[in-house]
Amino acid sequence: MLTMQDALLALTKYWTDRGCMVVQPFNTEVGAGTLNPATILRVLGPEPWRVAYVEPSVRPDDARYGENPNRLQTHTQFQVVLKPDPGNPQELFLASLEALGIDIDAHDVRFVEDNWANPATGSWGLGWEVCLDGLEITQFTYFQQAGGMTLDPVSVEITYGIERIMMALQGVSHFKDIAYAPGISYGEAFGQAEYEMSRYYLDDADVESQKRLFEEYAAEARRMLDARLPVPAHVYVLRCSHTFNVLDARGAVSTTERAKAFGRMRTLAREVATLWAERRTELEHPLGIAELPAAAPEPTEYPTMSSTRQLLFEIGTEEMPPSEVTKTAAAVRAALTEKLAATRLAHGDVTTYATPRRVIAFVAGVQSGEPDAERVVRGPRKSAAFDADGNLTKAAAGFARGQKVEAGELHDLEVDGVEYVAVTKPDPGRGAAEVLSGVLAEIVSGLRSDKNMRWNDAKLSFTRPVRWLVALLGDQVVPVSVSSLAAGRTTRVHRTAAQPTVEIAAAEGYLDLLRIHGIEADPAKRRATIVEAAQRLTAEVDGSVDVEGESALIDQIVNLVEEPTAILGNFSPDYLDLPAEILITVMRKHQRYLPVRDADGKLLPHFVAVANGSVDEATVRNGNEGVLRARYEDAAFFWRADLQTTPEAMKSGLEKLAFEERLGSMAERAGRIGKIAESLARTVKLEGDDLTALRRAAELAKFDLGSQMVVELTSLAGTMAREYARRAGETEAVAQALFDMELPRSAGDPVPATTPGAILALADRFDLLAGLFAIGAKPTGSSDPFALRRAAAGVVAILREHPELREITLPVGLSAAAEQIGAQGIEVPETSLDEVAEFTVRRYEQQLIDRGDDHLQVAAVLPLATAPARADETLAELQRQVETPGFAELVAVLQRARRIVPADVTAQYDPAKLTEPAELVLHEAVQKVGTAPTSLAEFVPAAEVLVEPITNFFEEILVMAEDEEVRAARLGLLATIRDLAAPVLDWQALGTSLTS
Amino acid sequence: MLTMQDALLALTKYWTDRGCMVVQPFNTEVGAGTLNPATILRVLGPEPWRVAYVEPSVRPDDARYGENPNRLQTHTQFQVVLKPDPGNPQELFLASLEALGIDIDAHDVRFVEDNWANPATGSWGLGWEVCLDGLEITQFTYFQQAGGMTLDPVSVEITYGIERIMMALQGVSHFKDIAYAPGISYGEAFGQAEYEMSRYYLDDADVESQKRLFEEYAAEARRMLDARLPVPAHVYVLRCSHTFNVLDARGAVSTTERAKAFGRMRTLAREVATLWAERRTELEHPLGIAELPAAAPEPTEYPTMSSTRQLLFEIGTEEMPPSEVTKTAAAVRAALTEKLAATRLAHGDVTTYATPRRVIAFVAGVQSGEPDAERVVRGPRKSAAFDADGNLTKAAAGFARGQKVEAGELHDLEVDGVEYVAVTKPDPGRGAAEVLSGVLAEIVSGLRSDKNMRWNDAKLSFTRPVRWLVALLGDQVVPVSVSSLAAGRTTRVHRTAAQPTVEIAAAEGYLDLLRIHGIEADPAKRRATIVEAAQRLTAEVDGSVDVEGESALIDQIVNLVEEPTAILGNFSPDYLDLPAEILITVMRKHQRYLPVRDADGKLLPHFVAVANGSVDEATVRNGNEGVLRARYEDAAFFWRADLQTTPEAMKSGLEKLAFEERLGSMAERAGRIGKIAESLARTVKLEGDDLTALRRAAELAKFDLGSQMVVELTSLAGTMAREYARRAGETEAVAQALFDMELPRSAGDPVPATTPGAILALADRFDLLAGLFAIGAKPTGSSDPFALRRAAAGVVAILREHPELREITLPVGLSAAAEQIGAQGIEVPETSLDEVAEFTVRRYEQQLIDRGDDHLQVAAVLPLATAPARADETLAELQRQVETPGFAELVAVLQRARRIVPADVTAQYDPAKLTEPAELVLHEAVQKVGTAPTSLAEFVPAAEVLVEPITNFFEEILVMAEDEEVRAARLGLLATIRDLAAPVLDWQALGTSLTS
Repeated sequence: MLTMQDALLALTKYWTDRGCMVVQPFNTEVGAGTLNPATILRVLGPEPWRVAYVEPSVRPDDARYGENPNRLQTHTQFQVVLKPDPGNPQELFLASLEALGIDIDAHDVRFVEDNWANPATGSWGLGWEVCLDGLEITQFTYFQQAGGMTLDPVSVEITYGIERIMMALQGVSHFKDIAYAPGISYGEAFGQAEYEMSRYYLDDADVESQKRLFEEYAAEARRMLDARLPVPAHVYVLRCSHTFNVLDARGAVSTTERAKAFGRMRTLAREVATLWAERRTELEHPLGIAELPAAAPEPTEYPTMSSTRQLLFEIGTEEMPPSEVTKTAAAVRAALTEKLAATRLAHGDVTTYATPRRVIAFVAGVQSGEPDAERVVRGPRKSAAFDADGNLTKAAAGFARGQKVEAGELHDLEVDGVEYVAVTKPDPGRGAAEVLSGVLAEIVSGLRSDKNMRWNDAKLSFTRPVRWLVALLGDQVVPVSVSSLAAGRTTRVHRTAAQPTVEIAAAEGYLDLLRIHGIEADPAKRRATIVEAAQRLTAEVDGSVDVEGESALIDQIVNLVEEPTAILGNFSPDYLDLPAEILITVMRKHQRYLPVRDADGKLLPHFVAVANGSVDEATVRNGNEGVLRARYEDAAFFWRADLQTTPEAMKSGLEKLAFEERLGSMAERAGRIGKIAESLARTVKLEGDDLTALRRAAELAKFDLGSQMVVELTSLAGTMAREYARRAGETEAVAQALFDMELPRSAGDPVPATTPGAILALADRFDLLAGLFAIGAKPTGSSDPFALRRAAAGVVAILREHPELREITLPVGLSAAAEQIGAQGIEVPETSLDEVAEFTVRRYEQQLIDRGDDHLQVAAVLPLATAPARADETLAELQRQVETPGFAELVAVLQRARRIVPADVTAQYDPAKLTEPAELVLHEAVQKVGTAPTSLAEFVPAAEVLVEPITNFFEEILVMAEDEEVRAARLGLLATIRDLAAPVLDWQALGTSLTS
Repeated sequence: MLTMQDALLALTKYWTDRGCMVVQPFNTEVGAGTLNPATILRVLGPEPWRVAYVEPSVRPDDARYGENPNRLQTHTQFQVVLKPDPGNPQELFLASLEALGIDIDAHDVRFVEDNWANPATGSWGLGWEVCLDGLEITQFTYFQQAGGMTLDPVSVEITYGIERIMMALQGVSHFKDIAYAPGISYGEAFGQAEYEMSRYYLDDADVESQKRLFEEYAAEARRMLDARLPVPAHVYVLRCSHTFNVLDARGAVSTTERAKAFGRMRTLAREVATLWAERRTELEHPLGIAELPAAAPEPTEYPTMSSTRQLLFEIGTEEMPPSEVTKTAAAVRAALTEKLAATRLAHGDVTTYATPRRVIAFVAGVQSGEPDAERVVRGPRKSAAFDADGNLTKAAAGFARGQKVEAGELHDLEVDGVEYVAVTKPDPGRGAAEVLSGVLAEIVSGLRSDKNMRWNDAKLSFTRPVRWLVALLGDQVVPVSVSSLAAGRTTRVHRTAAQPTVEIAAAEGYLDLLRIHGIEADPAKRRATIVEAAQRLTAEVDGSVDVEGESALIDQIVNLVEEPTAILGNFSPDYLDLPAEILITVMRKHQRYLPVRDADGKLLPHFVAVANGSVDEATVRNGNEGVLRARYEDAAFFWRADLQTTPEAMKSGLEKLAFEERLGSMAERAGRIGKIAESLARTVKLEGDDLTALRRAAELAKFDLGSQMVVELTSLAGTMAREYARRAGETEAVAQALFDMELPRSAGDPVPATTPGAILALADRFDLLAGLFAIGAKPTGSSDPFALRRAAAGVVAILREHPELREITLPVGLSAAAEQIGAQGIEVPETSLDEVAEFTVRRYEQQLIDRGDDHLQVAAVLPLATAPARADETLAELQRQVETPGFAELVAVLQRARRIVPADVTAQYDPAKLTEPAELVLHEAVQKVGTAPTSLAEFVPAAEVLVEPITNFFEEILVMAEDEEVRAARLGLLATIRDLAAPVLDWQALGTSLTS
């Protein structure tokens, strides 16, 4: 059996054989190998760097006295940094697994999107977690920025989680059972240290002393920066960081301290990075300057096509995030279509397909070339082209010479009524290959995703590295050159294939060629395969997969594999004792397994995992089962641990849970939510059992964020609150309210079922929105870290489905929130509340548009959307009314009245000044409508009496009478009508859609 | 080329293949791999432990900004701990060198005595520095005690100095040039960190902050001990230690702080050790209990010898310290002789030989067995053995029965006049093998050295492990069993031999058998070989070795090798620019090379190294030359660095040089020496140039201890002072005085040549003696850490050779010292000064005895030895006098006078009471002698007049007259004579040696 120390040696050997230098773990505590200067500083600047090292990573918060099977205060990372990206880091990594004795043909090794960011130090990267049969064994990152500095070149960072890997390889379920060395288990070797350091971090570290240490360290880091010594400065930043982590594990960091500490560490870390880079420059980069691959030569010759052929264009990438796979295929299709349209090259349909590793575009019937054409070049104005004698001026002669034409070839050209001289030159059509060469290059350089990265290519930027290009027009290679890439006819198939690269004879039949190599490029076919296999496998155990319900998950899986291999796995029925939500969450979110249910929808102890390629099914099943078992064991551990405590105790844990620096801890936020909910309850005059339930639930609000389960599985927030509340003897109403308050978790998710739950949910979201807008943290572009769009959409959804809460308009709710936030000393400007309301109304508008409502009608009810239920009713009424004869007329007259009255005219008039019959009739009609019909439904019937009088009024009366007083009275009358109508609908927004 | 990282990997692989676990370097700074808990804690208690790891060891004081070629603030240790001792750790270690690609047949690999102790933590061990062609590459220690706890079992600790090894293997002369990884040098990889951390440690660390950190760490360690968590406690002890080292490197530790800090760290470290051991016991020793080799079976059968044969007894050891080799051979010879004498086994001469690895004893002509004899057993008293009727009593019958004899066999036995009954039984002689079996076992278990250690043997204890025994009586194995060892006929030859064990056919001819295997067991022959080879080799370069002058070094070399292979090496003549003392010191003390001189005694750029065994001479020469070059380069570096500063600046460095906790820093000591010297100068009324020189030298006293050269090569203290003082423009008198003050450095060393130097040297030693005796740190047994015996001997030697200083008696000098020590608040009791004087006088006595003086004569002058010069003169006079006729008579009469006068009688009498002629004559004679002849030389001629009168007095006069007054007068007269004689000699001490 490979012991853990063997594994470390094997990895060290493997990577040194591949040019990595070995360094030692850092001699002060680090939370991750990344923080060793051999990574965090060496990734900066232009010097090449290849390093491999072991890093015992200390995370006080993970201390569990050695009791948790998967969690340690010190775990062992094996860290590799490759700078610059060698171009094949995934392949190098896979071979390293083989060096560990892992048969990567038999196992399912997958690169699953997982990005890394440490905003505290201005560091981030894109990459994957590498999964071995569903077990995350390695973090693989293209490091893009560190210490606030953009990395050039980019480094590849590979971080193996050694205990994880060993547990899997050795088939043990507790880290203590890992065979660390021959005859010595991990527990025997390190058990005592694990226990004692846990004691230290969790219970015994002296808080005041650690605080003083933090200050000393921060000050020393500062001094070293001032002395321009980044190396010792970094040591002290690390000490700050560890000390902070100790304090945090001891539960001793107040919100203010946290914010301050983070701020200081961030500043120091960034300065260290900057200073290090400067110092390396001063030292003239002792390790030299890293070189990136040279640019591919620009094409100079193109094949000549003799007939119409199909174009195959393949962009080969490293594993794209599932969400980008489909989007990129669409984007390539659109770009190709558009760019081809800008040429004169005739062609047939453009089709694209995508897998995680490739985007394939076909263009049918590409003509052999563009037809010839002419091109007119404008010269000087005619008036300047000829002198008084009709002879060519110097300017015109120069133009002709420049265009290489004889003077006689100049002709007239009129543009916008001005006459010029011009030449018309032949514009010969280019061959198809030449046209495509340019277009395809632009497609590649134009690739963009939600989040783009750099690798070892000087010019490209995309969601993940582009590693190869195939461009074939029929059987001819289209020479395409983009930065360092040149297209050819070689594609790549499964990395584990005996021959992982394949030559393509011709574009036609490429999908089938891929199929021969086990790759299904068509997502629809992959989806069908998955669904079919899942149903077939689950039928064997009298179960089934809810294909409809799991649609999003299946879509994701489709984009995670090139060759779906569904595998039915099992877990111990004992775990069915845990709440089903836990089991499902783990399967879906963490493992991307499809849950299996019986005919009644009850969970069965099975799951469907989808591997990539022709793996050894028994091995992969076994591995995935082990992973799920570990996760369930973990969950069971948390479940039992949580049940040993109380909701109140868990809630007290929220004190140390940061929410947002300025807005305080999660405990403070929960406190605000409770008070806002109380205020909203008063607004709707909640009473009786509902009020009782609300108040109790408000006391416990968000307590489950302090449970071990939710710390681990955040998506179970609410779910666990309900479970734990029930078991703690709370009433079902309280339990349900606590569950409800987290709803809806996403678009399409149910809203709270109960009124107390709905109020809490609203309070939660009002607090979030008002607070974050107040501190200027509103979403920008694609950045919405606090998911405010979702929160606002949730507010809308709840209010729309809870008409009993109609008194809670957006301003009411936001004011209640602002009051609580203000009580914490954070000013909430009125304008910011307006912004939130506007932002929320936009979500409402979006919901309506998305369901297909007429956008004019939607616009008409938007002014009412601060009370979405009322807007809904109005819209419904509007939709009824537009079908009603006469409504169009009403709209028309109301619009006309509004148009004619200047906005500054108020709804007041002296009836005595009205003398004409038509105006008197209208005056009376207005009197009949009376004051304030508050809904469209009330208003329309009431306002019917106005239609004819207004029509007549406009026909008979000159509103703009010369007599000022008369004019004022007439305008006042119309303004009165305008204001009567205004509260129930934005009549103007309807435009002329009804009336024209 | 093997890069440094390759080497680390190779060692890791090698040791894991031999059952070692790998751990990571510790994640807080440690000064040595020993402090990693994987050593310092794991060596405690009974659990087995085999571990190997890399440890970047941080020593702030060694920071040199990366400029010094051999010195780094962080150097790399590779640490191996084997617990228990596997029995063959040296062989395992040698094979590890082969794993590094070192050809141990070609190289000279030697185990040179080097013991390790860290009194601060109550830790020590015995072992070697392992030298590769003269380069110390590894520390090899049998760890005996840690944290104040005796280790059971003992651990073997092997610490490789990786940079050292790599520089040798790669043939580079600066650590920065080590090929660390392919294409990356050590300097490129770590140069910046080395510079910056040097800056931090030497210049930039905030002293006040570090002091506060020390307090925090110490307090946290204390708290963790109280919480019974030794692991975090140890972490904080390490942090204390590192912080202290930083402060020390910053020159910021005052004497008081140093003492206090050491005290705290010591206490904490010991408590950590104790607590760890307790905790492991509580945890029931998770790694089990280490097992030592079982005891060898006791012999039950012995070979029968048919003739007289030679006995060969060989005790095979690991490399003994050179000083123990000769001593052990002598001790074994003595023990064997004595123990055989206690048997009836007849035998011839006992001869012993020794090498570093074996002690060989031969006993010639061992008879085949003991002759038979009889044994008398005493029974009851005869009176109780027979009743009134003469019949045997029950008691006597029982005795006979018990002795298994018939009643008739009882016979009478008289003991001390009492009659008993007894039996006489035959006592058959044992065979020679049986007799020897017991004797030889006792020899082994009785082996002792100055400093003894344990290894993996349950019962034995010796200077180094005993690994094998050979006991052959002729061709028969004598079965000897001692603890786990059993004697046989197998010996071990060179470890690098193709067949490192050899069977011995018979005792006879064993020395020649060893010679066949290259081993010369006879030290005299080894010495001859070395001397002959050295002279032959040096003759080739027109030089020679001063065999006489280097005698002690040659003796040491003789005991360092089993097969001397002298090699002539060279060094660059450029180094001859350095003071010769430096060059010689390095050769002798550090490398054990014989310096080579020309006919004028001038150093030549050559040396003779003596390797062990048949090495590849070119390789070994090359290696040794490289080592010497590095050392000379180092020395040149220090030399140049020191010359850039001034004596005053160096002297200021003494502030941070600890002397003794209570007695303060070296600066304080130097200050005292200066003042004591001033005081002594007054005593001898020093004036003129001498006084000027003394005062300036006193100001600079010991300044060179602050020079880099002396920090490195402490034996050059004084030598460097003279060199640097000259170069700093001091007068030659001052320079010489500074040199002189360190003399004599050992027995036989010259004393100061100048009076000012002598005064300073005395002041130095008086301060040392008075101070350390005052604080109770006087030498005990073999423990004399401050070399007080040497200091006292130095005082005597100086005073004997500087008669101009005769006014400086021991009391005068010690009082002067006591005054200065007292001024620092340390009380120096009078009794302690008396003790020092007594202790010093003993050294004087020893010097005289050693040079062969008559011990009675020596005793006679000892009372004068508080002024050794005077005692010398007296002794010389005495020796003249004893040859003089009449002196014996003088002695006799003086002794007689003294004997007869009670000690309490004073030298006063009333002459009027003297009436008898004989007494009157004597009275007159006494008057003639007059008062106070102050030397023996004066006294004897003066006292001649007394001889006859005293003789007559005793003949004629009854001293004890009845008349009390008469008696008093007569006694007073004799007491006067006694007191006249007393100051010049202890006449009584001469005994009757002259007179009988």
